[in-house]
Amino acid sequence: MAESLEQMPKSETIRLRDRYIGQACKLFYKSNPLKIVRAEGQYMYDERGNRYLDCINNVAHVGHCHPSVVRAGQDQMAMLSTNNRFLHDNLVICARRLTSFLPEPLSVCFLVNSGSEANDLALRLAQTHTKNKDIITLDHAYHGHLTSMIDISPYKFNKPNGPGKKDWIHVAPCPDVYRGKYREIDHPDEDLGERYADDVRIICQNLKNKGKGVCAFIAESLLSVGGQILPPQSYFRNAYRHVREVGGVCIADEVQVGFGRVGSHMWAFQLYGEDAIPDIVTVGKPMGNGHPVAAVITTPAIAESFKNTGIEYFNTYGGNPVSCAIANAVMEVIERENLQENALLVGNHLMSELRKLAKRRKIIGDVRGVGLFVGIELVRDRVTRTPATTEAKHVVTRMKDRKILISSDGPDDNILKVKPPMVFTIENVNHLVSTLDEVLEEVDIGDEENYESTTILKATISKMDVDTDNTTCPSTKSLLVRAN
Amino acid sequence: MAESLEQMPKSETIRLRDRYIGQACKLFYKSNPLKIVRAEGQYMYDERGNRYLDCINNVAHVGHCHPSVVRAGQDQMAMLSTNNRFLHDNLVICARRLTSFLPEPLSVCFLVNSGSEANDLALRLAQTHTKNKDIITLDHAYHGHLTSMIDISPYKFNKPNGPGKKDWIHVAPCPDVYRGKYREIDHPDEDLGERYADDVRIICQNLKNKGKGVCAFIAESLLSVGGQILPPQSYFRNAYRHVREVGGVCIADEVQVGFGRVGSHMWAFQLYGEDAIPDIVTVGKPMGNGHPVAAVITTPAIAESFKNTGIEYFNTYGGNPVSCAIANAVMEVIERENLQENALLVGNHLMSELRKLAKRRKIIGDVRGVGLFVGIELVRDRVTRTPATTEAKHVVTRMKDRKILISSDGPDDNILKVKPPMVFTIENVNHLVSTLDEVLEEVDIGDEENYESTTILKATISKMDVDTDNTTCPSTKSLLVRAN
Repeated sequence: MAESLEQMPKSETIRLRDRYIGQACKLFYKSNPLKIVRAEGQYMYDERGNRYLDCINNVAHVGHCHPSVVRAGQDQMAMLSTNNRFLHDNLVICARRLTSFLPEPLSVCFLVNSGSEANDLALRLAQTHTKNKDIITLDHAYHGHLTSMIDISPYKFNKPNGPGKKDWIHVAPCPDVYRGKYREIDHPDEDLGERYADDVRIICQNLKNKGKGVCAFIAESLLSVGGQILPPQSYFRNAYRHVREVGGVCIADEVQVGFGRVGSHMWAFQLYGEDAIPDIVTVGKPMGNGHPVAAVITTPAIAESFKNTGIEYFNTYGGNPVSCAIANAVMEVIERENLQENALLVGNHLMSELRKLAKRRKIIGDVRGVGLFVGIELVRDRVTRTPATTEAKHVVTRMKDRKILISSDGPDDNILKVKPPMVFTIENVNHLVSTLDEVLEEVDIGDEENYESTTILKATISKMDVDTDNTTCPSTKSLLVRAN
Repeated sequence: MAESLEQMPKSETIRLRDRYIGQACKLFYKSNPLKIVRAEGQYMYDERGNRYLDCINNVAHVGHCHPSVVRAGQDQMAMLSTNNRFLHDNLVICARRLTSFLPEPLSVCFLVNSGSEANDLALRLAQTHTKNKDIITLDHAYHGHLTSMIDISPYKFNKPNGPGKKDWIHVAPCPDVYRGKYREIDHPDEDLGERYADDVRIICQNLKNKGKGVCAFIAESLLSVGGQILPPQSYFRNAYRHVREVGGVCIADEVQVGFGRVGSHMWAFQLYGEDAIPDIVTVGKPMGNGHPVAAVITTPAIAESFKNTGIEYFNTYGGNPVSCAIANAVMEVIERENLQENALLVGNHLMSELRKLAKRRKIIGDVRGVGLFVGIELVRDRVTRTPATTEAKHVVTRMKDRKILISSDGPDDNILKVKPPMVFTIENVNHLVSTLDEVLEEVDIGDEENYESTTILKATISKMDVDTDNTTCPSTKSLLVRAN
């Protein structure tokens, strides 16, 4: 079957791509890229029918080609696709449902086509509302491919040949307690959330001293390309407070990590308690399960400031009936199939297995994660924590040979990322971890060493009520675990 | 049938929209908006089954819900939708086909999700290639809703409460020969293309005198929200030359006007001859017939500069298999159904009928257009050319009562726009014009007055070979006609 899905041999696809597609668009596995012709659930198939376990496509949130989502898109496509200057039920149903998952006062939506568009609009909303310009972003952060997003993404602007930092951008340290500015190992008894947030306070104070206000503080609730970072529990609560004290707006970028991926909550910012509520939330990738749809959700006050300019916001495809039908189906499937709970259970099993693996494989410096958002940091030495960059690259390639798709990221590209479709199973975890074990043997750095779970990220588990004594997963009792 | 497509009464849709959607997102016909539940070809249907003739949705390029396009999207959706870091045939077929419609050296594509994203990337390409920052844009231009696009869109930044002009943005006059800075009536024997382009030259010269280069000159090949403006024949040729002399890149924004709408050519920039070829072309709206897909096409040299930064360009949904399947189907349908030729014939008939109408209705100050891109400028006085803004608004509302959708635009909102799906027929034109005649009677400003076609926009008709003696359309002989 798979063969018939090709319209030309792979070599010809590569030749045409080289010729007609800008080469700044890069391929996975550059030297021998994959040609994927179909996908289903957590599996992708190449042109020869080989099946790959997909551990990285968080966009295919409820599983590749989920039948309910596909049908919703197909049906609406045949009926109507037009712009939101006309009334349509799908749009308002989408907005109502989306806001039903969010705490007050986050109740006003803008529908757009991509996470980048969402973050761009979030900044416009913040600028209009605060009338300030200066923005605080986190080191190594990535918020999108647009000009305005590169401005706030150190991951891009700090690259060699990157455009560099604009003077109205202020970079706070990445709240990485494993290999960041402040480390748990150096401050065993300190609340590093407060300490990292204090760097945000200093930026705010400096701006205030210059007579300036803050426009926005923007951060992913969990940092993805920054290296699968879990900020300390008290970080956002404190950072938000400092930012608001100088009139700034707090933006939570949930484009990568929203829609139940963290397992215990619908949104990652909810991990940090009820006193860490942003003023603007951006959502994207998972929302359309691959279809271009994203959204900005904000407070009535901020939406009102934007409306009061009198300038229309029009986005040609934003909130069109097809995009909204698909987003509505995705939200329905998340609930109907209990995918948030699945992310919690399977994610905890994954964490537990990876912690066991870390005891055997010394190259694993840190395992961290929540739900189905997990990072495995490879280091050459557990004391110096020297990043094992080439080793990570090797592992990604060798895992591909074993038909498992994972990727590496972080400032030193030494963190293996796992962020699979939410239908990932316990069996998938076991297969992933046992294969990883075999592959890590090729790059491991020495003898077994004692590796213990030392820190617990305490999060309020408010929405879910999981009976921790009755799960198959041994780690469910400590719902959110950071091991190092 | 139509009733069953509603999920709630219209009043409830309005209530939920007011509550959950940012009110900066405006509705057509604000006081009594339309709820559209399905659409087909050039017709849209409201919740009561009323049929509207759609004269404005240029996005539904090959007709609303075209079966071939719908099927292509449906089939691919069920098979695979993933990012372009994997090889896929649909992407390379799309890029090859798109570039086949463009002259050399425009041969390298980047696929994105919206015209705004395309224009943003075009500017990034220009900045990377030229290492300059200053941008020349046209007065009243609109290039998108993103922060970077508002920067270059006087239509937005000059609005009351707009952010104003940045110092690296330079606004050249809109090359409107009817009511612009230089008018045909004042310069009957002059080439106003040269004169308008000379204002671009002066901007370039001033920058050069300051030791600066130009990054880019960006313009729609026909100005849409600027007021359905047809720049004089020699304008772009001259403007491009001036810009290139100071190292700038020329960007043609074809988001609104590309894909055969102008009838005689696939792209509007081709109206101006073979010596007016841009360095970057952006395409969007019609490309996906409502699906979020857009593209940037540029030269190998510019793509190479971008690649050489070493910074990856990754757009999550850009060039995904579904978007490309849909774009490929749209391009196939344009060719198979001869929609470009249809735009030419039906568009010429429309122009001819509107010119006749202008003889009867004194409020029509100017009728201009090419293919199915037409503007009808309403004025209170043909000598002073005072814009008939409230009258235009009245006409739009009254046309809606007659089940015809048109809109108004331009800096004074006095230009009626006609840019229907490309399946528009001669009968649709006759119905539109006779209805417009009746509605204009309500606002007309006086007695009949002599109204003659005076100017001809001469364009090289290179691609098509229409037998002008054998068409039903009396105006086909003068393929591109401006009447005033």
